[in-house]
Amino acid sequence: MKFIILKENLNKGLNIVSRVTGKNSTLPILNNILIDAQKNFLNLSATDLELGIKYWSLIKTEKEGKITIPAKILSSFINLLPEDKIYFELKNQIFNINCQSYQTKIKGLSAEDFPIIPKIENNNFIQLDCQTFCKGLSQVVDFASQNQTTKPELSGVYLNFGKDTLSLTTTDSFRLAEKILFFEEKNNQELSLIIPQRSVREIINILSEKEGKLRFYFSTHQVLFEYFMSETDHPEIQLISRLIDGDYPDYQEIIPKKYEIQTLLSKEDFLNHVKTASIFSGKTNEIKIIVKKDGIEILSQNPEFGENKSFLSAQVKYASVGIKEMEVSFNYRFLIDGLLNIKGPEVIFELNGEGGPAVLKPKDDTSYIYIVMPIKST
Amino acid sequence: MKFIILKENLNKGLNIVSRVTGKNSTLPILNNILIDAQKNFLNLSATDLELGIKYWSLIKTEKEGKITIPAKILSSFINLLPEDKIYFELKNQIFNINCQSYQTKIKGLSAEDFPIIPKIENNNFIQLDCQTFCKGLSQVVDFASQNQTTKPELSGVYLNFGKDTLSLTTTDSFRLAEKILFFEEKNNQELSLIIPQRSVREIINILSEKEGKLRFYFSTHQVLFEYFMSETDHPEIQLISRLIDGDYPDYQEIIPKKYEIQTLLSKEDFLNHVKTASIFSGKTNEIKIIVKKDGIEILSQNPEFGENKSFLSAQVKYASVGIKEMEVSFNYRFLIDGLLNIKGPEVIFELNGEGGPAVLKPKDDTSYIYIVMPIKST
Repeated sequence: MKFIILKENLNKGLNIVSRVTGKNSTLPILNNILIDAQKNFLNLSATDLELGIKYWSLIKTEKEGKITIPAKILSSFINLLPEDKIYFELKNQIFNINCQSYQTKIKGLSAEDFPIIPKIENNNFIQLDCQTFCKGLSQVVDFASQNQTTKPELSGVYLNFGKDTLSLTTTDSFRLAEKILFFEEKNNQELSLIIPQRSVREIINILSEKEGKLRFYFSTHQVLFEYFMSETDHPEIQLISRLIDGDYPDYQEIIPKKYEIQTLLSKEDFLNHVKTASIFSGKTNEIKIIVKKDGIEILSQNPEFGENKSFLSAQVKYASVGIKEMEVSFNYRFLIDGLLNIKGPEVIFELNGEGGPAVLKPKDDTSYIYIVMPIKST
Repeated sequence: MKFIILKENLNKGLNIVSRVTGKNSTLPILNNILIDAQKNFLNLSATDLELGIKYWSLIKTEKEGKITIPAKILSSFINLLPEDKIYFELKNQIFNINCQSYQTKIKGLSAEDFPIIPKIENNNFIQLDCQTFCKGLSQVVDFASQNQTTKPELSGVYLNFGKDTLSLTTTDSFRLAEKILFFEEKNNQELSLIIPQRSVREIINILSEKEGKLRFYFSTHQVLFEYFMSETDHPEIQLISRLIDGDYPDYQEIIPKKYEIQTLLSKEDFLNHVKTASIFSGKTNEIKIIVKKDGIEILSQNPEFGENKSFLSAQVKYASVGIKEMEVSFNYRFLIDGLLNIKGPEVIFELNGEGGPAVLKPKDDTSYIYIVMPIKST
């Protein structure tokens, strides 16, 4: 193997694929990146067996070949080189690197020992706008369950492709978030699947700044996201994730169809009042919301330190005349998490009694909903 | 106690004094801030028994008094309040705080139980430019010894006030840094003392952005730095640190008076070459410098991963004709630490054989010197 590449291009690729390396200590070769020079492309690959990443860059290949190299050493080293051409040559499993006055040798491991990243044989794909998709994922990804043992299906993001919409959903049983994306053209492949939370985080990290379209391929156990080089028909990045087996619960049942009290609040003010109250919440993180006729009162107290009370003006609507005041307790972290994912200056906050699910959603936007269960009074 | 203060002013003071709280778990009251309203000043104080900090702010006092309040709760709470007036009132050891719609109570501990921060009776002071002093300290503070047991005197910054100069020195036996500051007017109080590293870090953190003069008072066991409110004769900040007992070694002996080889290098390039070499250094952090006639070669190797060699052009001067090439090994971290504290684009790097002290210093500036011992070859 012998090729020439610009430092900038190689650096970009290494930053992307090395995100999945170094997370598996039982199989040392997973700390390595597979480097494969063929025709006029360099292909970098890495995997943690759950998520595989491939990256292609145009190069000048003098001799084809492949090798695996420790990701950490290679990335930190290339990152420090001057912005110039880098000359690579493989001699007896030793990767020789020359750039300006630098002469470097890195020991490789045979490409034969590198695990195969699965391919997807299905040629059908669904096309998505890359930034819209990533932005949608980022509004729900945090709320997948951290418990992968008892209910593994809740530990991922649920994608449900319908004719007109793609809905993205997560829940950890305490709260649930759903974001709906609308297709520009009708989608004729209805399907649903669950992607592990960590894979989704990497999709967001790697692709959220990319403009243009993303192609989505799927099989029974894997999903592939493919991003193309601008102005070519060659892929630039592929992310291949395993899927989580299992049936996602029928969460539509949990989304309240009505409310007892609806309030319209300034998002920033609500966030500040909740944060301030949180300082005096106890170990349960409990703060109390009391809805009055012209706003909400936020209360918290801690026998050790003290207490806090504040009032925030709001537009308040009651579902029936019988309802006057309502007291509901929440884990303040769950309220903050939801508020941080609401776009726009105003938030609708709907309550359904001291035990019923509460709803946070943006004003004038039905595409996002965040549901949070109260702390039941003891 | 009853007073009114602007949120902004209180917040500023809390950010400063709370830096020393929460570091001593054996004496819980040290997690508190002493709040003392007298005449038209609010005084905030905190201490960790090594360093005490006092801060004054102008307020409207309705009733004088004092109390201590947990620093963490108070700072995080005040920080989140709206930018407005805050009303404080002490009732039965409970601090009542009102700001806009917020009504808050925080439990205090009696001011009687708060340790006394020592006063300095000596009225003589030395005046220093605050930013110059802090900048100087920041060039040496990192190199004090971390070992406070065997040689406690090396665990601080040594200040030596002469007639015309103040020299600031640290050493951990592996390297030594000295910065010399020049007085504008003759100083008639010659003295020397050792300030604990942590106190010096806080002096830098708290005062480095402040314009104007700093007054420096001293006694046998304490030192006081006093910064004045602009346009008043009232102090705004006082830092009172204990001193380290002991005699600082006669370090002038260690500073080489001559060199065997002197090189003049680009600082940024040297830094990059050392960092690149560091990737291939072993567990000893060892990299090798070989001086050639027109520059230096930097070598590192690791039997596990590989090796790196690079060359950097330099102006090279030999002290005698007998010297041709020289190989010296260094801990790369010590070279990086020194280079990061050299101001200006060019650095002078002087070598005295494979066991002799090497020197890093800025070109055309004799006020700073960094000395580093080589790793002796085994």
